[in-house]
Amino acid sequence: MELIEDGSILPPAGFLAGSSRCGLKERTGDPDIAILAGEGEFSCAGVFTRNLFAAAPVVWSRSILPADSLRAVAVNSGNANACTGRQGMEDAVRMADIVASLAGCRPQQVAVASTGVIGRRLPMSKVQSGLEEAFFSLSADPDAAKEAEKAIMTTDTRPKSCAVRVDCEGGPVLLGGMAKGAGMIAPDMATMLAFITTDIAAESAGLREILARCADDTFNMVTVDGDTSTNDSVFLAASGRSGAECGDPETKKRFTEGLHLLMEDLAIQIAADGEGATKLVEVRVEEARNRSDAVRAARAIADSLLVKCAINGEDPNWGRIVCAAGRSGAKIIPENTELLLGKTTVMLRGLPTGNDARAELKSDRVLIEMRLGAGQASARAWTCDISKQYVEINAEYHT
Amino acid sequence: MELIEDGSILPPAGFLAGSSRCGLKERTGDPDIAILAGEGEFSCAGVFTRNLFAAAPVVWSRSILPADSLRAVAVNSGNANACTGRQGMEDAVRMADIVASLAGCRPQQVAVASTGVIGRRLPMSKVQSGLEEAFFSLSADPDAAKEAEKAIMTTDTRPKSCAVRVDCEGGPVLLGGMAKGAGMIAPDMATMLAFITTDIAAESAGLREILARCADDTFNMVTVDGDTSTNDSVFLAASGRSGAECGDPETKKRFTEGLHLLMEDLAIQIAADGEGATKLVEVRVEEARNRSDAVRAARAIADSLLVKCAINGEDPNWGRIVCAAGRSGAKIIPENTELLLGKTTVMLRGLPTGNDARAELKSDRVLIEMRLGAGQASARAWTCDISKQYVEINAEYHT
Repeated sequence: MELIEDGSILPPAGFLAGSSRCGLKERTGDPDIAILAGEGEFSCAGVFTRNLFAAAPVVWSRSILPADSLRAVAVNSGNANACTGRQGMEDAVRMADIVASLAGCRPQQVAVASTGVIGRRLPMSKVQSGLEEAFFSLSADPDAAKEAEKAIMTTDTRPKSCAVRVDCEGGPVLLGGMAKGAGMIAPDMATMLAFITTDIAAESAGLREILARCADDTFNMVTVDGDTSTNDSVFLAASGRSGAECGDPETKKRFTEGLHLLMEDLAIQIAADGEGATKLVEVRVEEARNRSDAVRAARAIADSLLVKCAINGEDPNWGRIVCAAGRSGAKIIPENTELLLGKTTVMLRGLPTGNDARAELKSDRVLIEMRLGAGQASARAWTCDISKQYVEINAEYHT
Repeated sequence: MELIEDGSILPPAGFLAGSSRCGLKERTGDPDIAILAGEGEFSCAGVFTRNLFAAAPVVWSRSILPADSLRAVAVNSGNANACTGRQGMEDAVRMADIVASLAGCRPQQVAVASTGVIGRRLPMSKVQSGLEEAFFSLSADPDAAKEAEKAIMTTDTRPKSCAVRVDCEGGPVLLGGMAKGAGMIAPDMATMLAFITTDIAAESAGLREILARCADDTFNMVTVDGDTSTNDSVFLAASGRSGAECGDPETKKRFTEGLHLLMEDLAIQIAADGEGATKLVEVRVEEARNRSDAVRAARAIADSLLVKCAINGEDPNWGRIVCAAGRSGAKIIPENTELLLGKTTVMLRGLPTGNDARAELKSDRVLIEMRLGAGQASARAWTCDISKQYVEINAEYHT
């Protein structure tokens, strides 16, 4: 199993990418439409936001997935098509319709996704020309994938992609992915979208199960509080071109490991590119009573505004970390608790060690490790620091 | 029932206040020790943080309260005496000891509270002289109360106090209170302390019940996620000097209303003085299926960083409010949902109205009102916007 340098959604055979700019990002004129299409039919599964105000594209895609004969996923950035009522629903279906006409398939074979401002109707004539242009640009050239990565961005400062090669009995299996970030990485912080391709042969129901399991440890540990925007969507598309079969238990195991690696890599890229972020933060919780306690404590720490501020100021104010864990609901035995910043132990058996951890915070990748002393379970979460720029970006976005 | 202008903890008879500066706030040299004492014994109840890393003073005060023969509450700011292990516990008891010697009572008749940096030992020789000086300054003069209000502050920009008169059958009952804020008003955001006095006659067990009930609607709707710092403590002390008896059902009812008013007033003062805050935000959730849903939705909105940023930028980005409610776990029927900013309806039956709410955000007090369309229950929460100054303050605090 290895990461492929300069990876994208196109190493796996059987897929094409296209993109265009249709004017949804009024201020910048950046690309805003992307299409991921199969050379033929592919199987596809998705995991989606649990927000009760799920956007129209989520409602549509959730209704048609998992599916074994998808033809395309169509995406726009700049407008979330959320809180847009029946009209929004018609517009989401219309996006599928437009692409289906171009591809010569049924609308039920086209999934859709949107990200951007909430509560505004999609300008459908722009979207229609954008989809047409993107469709006619479909290509298996890696550059087409790179363009698509840009077209799904909103406040991301850089495109995010990754690819992995897994050696299986039926031959090598390739996985590729692209993602867009979620503004600051914390509850309800805008939208996370990810599109993952693979050339394994798999039924969509099986893909769904593997995808959901991997998302729990990766994307769901970045968008703390889990799947919370109106539009969060992750798609996994399998072309079957490699000849390897997901039905084989050993192949499935290796494929799952590869998918986990790919999704973790994308998750970390998303955390590192939080709005205004200057540092990536990895939180490890060890010795929890059970997995759910470990997740709870890791999220509480990753989610703490005071912790994020301290890291921004490169200040080893570990009391804030302990405080966040203490209110998380996880069982903690204070006298058994240990806390490390990087490799420096700042608390041991519940007491300050007096060690100076200042140097550990100078790095652009900060590790927080807390041992709860209550059991064997562990969890990891990823976040970033919060800077004045974050407030600036989010006080000014939208209008 | 009426608010008393320029209120403090000293309108109720039977109490004295004292304060001093002993050097715990090294940089500023501001007052850092306060004592609230009874002229004689008083009954007292408290509600405390649920954080598993509860500070030593919380452990002590929780162990002796409710009590019918308390003599004093001793407080220091500048050092939280949290994560300080057995030594910290000895220091907290020693604070009670010192005051007990001065007052000629048992240590079990003295409650204590601390607020400030976590993980540092209290410098006990400083604290001892500070407590002695504060004790000898004890006075019933309103100015002494004003000084005590300053001595409990940390990053608060102004002292917070309030007093209320309630007409009961046994004559008027007075209530007074002082509080310190909790940095930014959100989960785990530093410490909230409040000290409330009254001249009603009441047993401490009864006070405990009334205090807990009022805290649920007031302080617990400011420190969102409830009682989350290591040190949060609220004390209610009753001298019995008014002659009115809390045992009388009608008197108890009126007293509870008065306490609710006082605590709500202090809660709002705390929210308005959040670190770097420029606006007070009140969130009202109506038409929830039940109270717990209403609380959940109100807290999720009040807690949303993106909502706070939008308000800071005076940007009516209501999609963020809807998104926060949608992920709160409260039952919501999107098609029945209404959202108002101030008096402007921005969403009706789940759809944007197109009304411009920009002017509603110009005020320094912003009202968000959301009707979930799922029932009859309601809740209110208070918070503030988040500004670049907030990040500045919290990236630089501590070291």
